[in-house]
Amino acid sequence: MSAATIAFRHLFGPGPTNTYPEASLALSRPLLGHLDPAFLAEMDHACEGLRRVWGTQNRRTLPLSATGSAGMEAAFVNTVHPGDVVVIGVNGLFGERMCDVAARCGADVVRVDFEWGQPVDAERLVTAHPHPRIIAAVHAETSTGVRSDIAALGAAKGDALLLVDAVTSIGGIELRADDWGIDVGYAGTQKCLGVAPGLAPFTINERAWQRRVAKPQSWYLDLGMLGGYVGEASGAKRTYHHTAPVAMVVSLAAALDRIGEEGLENVWARHQGAGDALQHGLQEMGLELFAADGYRLPELTTVKVPAGVDSARVRGYLLDRYDIEIGAGVKQFASSVWRIGLMGPNANPGSVALILAALKDAIDRA
Amino acid sequence: MSAATIAFRHLFGPGPTNTYPEASLALSRPLLGHLDPAFLAEMDHACEGLRRVWGTQNRRTLPLSATGSAGMEAAFVNTVHPGDVVVIGVNGLFGERMCDVAARCGADVVRVDFEWGQPVDAERLVTAHPHPRIIAAVHAETSTGVRSDIAALGAAKGDALLLVDAVTSIGGIELRADDWGIDVGYAGTQKCLGVAPGLAPFTINERAWQRRVAKPQSWYLDLGMLGGYVGEASGAKRTYHHTAPVAMVVSLAAALDRIGEEGLENVWARHQGAGDALQHGLQEMGLELFAADGYRLPELTTVKVPAGVDSARVRGYLLDRYDIEIGAGVKQFASSVWRIGLMGPNANPGSVALILAALKDAIDRA
Repeated sequence: MSAATIAFRHLFGPGPTNTYPEASLALSRPLLGHLDPAFLAEMDHACEGLRRVWGTQNRRTLPLSATGSAGMEAAFVNTVHPGDVVVIGVNGLFGERMCDVAARCGADVVRVDFEWGQPVDAERLVTAHPHPRIIAAVHAETSTGVRSDIAALGAAKGDALLLVDAVTSIGGIELRADDWGIDVGYAGTQKCLGVAPGLAPFTINERAWQRRVAKPQSWYLDLGMLGGYVGEASGAKRTYHHTAPVAMVVSLAAALDRIGEEGLENVWARHQGAGDALQHGLQEMGLELFAADGYRLPELTTVKVPAGVDSARVRGYLLDRYDIEIGAGVKQFASSVWRIGLMGPNANPGSVALILAALKDAIDRA
Repeated sequence: MSAATIAFRHLFGPGPTNTYPEASLALSRPLLGHLDPAFLAEMDHACEGLRRVWGTQNRRTLPLSATGSAGMEAAFVNTVHPGDVVVIGVNGLFGERMCDVAARCGADVVRVDFEWGQPVDAERLVTAHPHPRIIAAVHAETSTGVRSDIAALGAAKGDALLLVDAVTSIGGIELRADDWGIDVGYAGTQKCLGVAPGLAPFTINERAWQRRVAKPQSWYLDLGMLGGYVGEASGAKRTYHHTAPVAMVVSLAAALDRIGEEGLENVWARHQGAGDALQHGLQEMGLELFAADGYRLPELTTVKVPAGVDSARVRGYLLDRYDIEIGAGVKQFASSVWRIGLMGPNANPGSVALILAALKDAIDRA
């Protein structure tokens, strides 16, 4: 493919998003060795930046060396002992995936379903079983564009560990792992953090650490071995576990610096502003939003495909004419919902104006 | 770190290596969506290139979305049924790691040890158990710089599956998965392929596929689900499993193109030439090689630290004065062996001249 024209796409789907320029530039820096002091400083810097976007003081906060879905697996594989009761809120694809992953770890899964497009309800989750070991939920459901109230879950979790998917919320909307009582959390880099996919930002607090599985079934995701890899404490001696994806870690550190310079709350406000403008504009066009009012994610908007319009045709037109990618819906909503993401650098008024104009044209002409 | 001076290192250790320029440039290309037709073409192209460097026609040949160590886990997690006898040749760290990973998958591990610095012996491996389900070995031991004869193992494996670690051999020395009878193989991108770490090139043939675990304990590495992700057959419909690390895949495709243009056998010859020159030069300097004569990897040379010389001090001097990274030895050889890699773009006469001159200076003055 080396001789082919290089495509540029506006990535307005559910992720990956276009990257912050700083993140892209960092990717092309000369490679460092994974035990080079200069790289270890970058890794420490990335972990420090991750603590900020997670809203945590957890020293065990690090980028796992795989994509967000591996973060989900790491969360369960390190905390589920055989037969543990794990209550999982399911209001979309990623809650469903949690059930699959937890079951493979030997969990006794108690699945609590909610209508797609609605948030999970803390009360129903915490009363689903008298003694759950873990309660798990997705903060921002990528399949439906819905935000759930994690703080409410944390307040009501009792003795259970609270395990949270923050793949599509981190770096885009308010996320306060410590204040909300999140014990274990995982995320991805390719959404609001504005970095290419390939790492899973992960955090685990002392409470969950004390209850962890001593020897998990996964060697690669064994947090007990990963502690030495990132250096749990300042100045701790690093031990070799696996070769860190050095280019990706340096890129993540650069994006987190960028977010820090803008200010995290300003970044949240920018995502909120873009999402509000997009959702307002879509409704002005006569389109109907899918996610329940009051629980809509600003960074990922779901909208119903109008009657008589061919979803795939519109998406193809956007790609061909405007180099714009938007997402189809998921499962039973594959052809009846679109997913429009404005994440990371794309959360801005220009992207809002572009997608609204292009979508209107596509619906009219595709 | 964004304002700091950007370091350049000559990565002459056991990996990562410096990348082929084409691979670095590809990393900074604008991101594509993971389901974009343009990206799917890149993924297909990368898989085709991987078949060439693996020496295989296996249609199930793909870059797994994590580093080489996850490739090892994928190999065992998809093939080991509880209680299966797995014979593992251990002549270094990565053979040891195989034992740990296989045991976590429920294997009955039969470990066959060889002296570090020596190859594994096919005869001893195949006679270690009357009915092994799997025989596993490392082609190029990164901890010792030793090559083992995989073709001999393949010829003698009988009914067992042959599972091979090709992390440090792929793209550097002769590797013929199909001709040698490799049933399952995994590798890494950060050695002779000259790409940043972050992907695990993987291949599995029809014979191993038929015996695979239907529902492995790992969701992330479940090959049954990954088939749709890369599209097993030409024109097959893609299904979403996880978000591919798109930047890394495009970078891998670019490096494989570069290797293809040079010609794979020419690339092997280049590595052999650089390794021979390095090993000759080291011996000329009066140094003693560690790996057994006749089994030395050209891409990764192990050399004994001379008596009275401080290994860490020499490595520090090389890094500070020359921006050169070489590797320490592993475990009991941590301070008595150095590992010098000339991989990917670094397999050339200039790198040989540089490391020989710098190492001589370092031994004299550090």
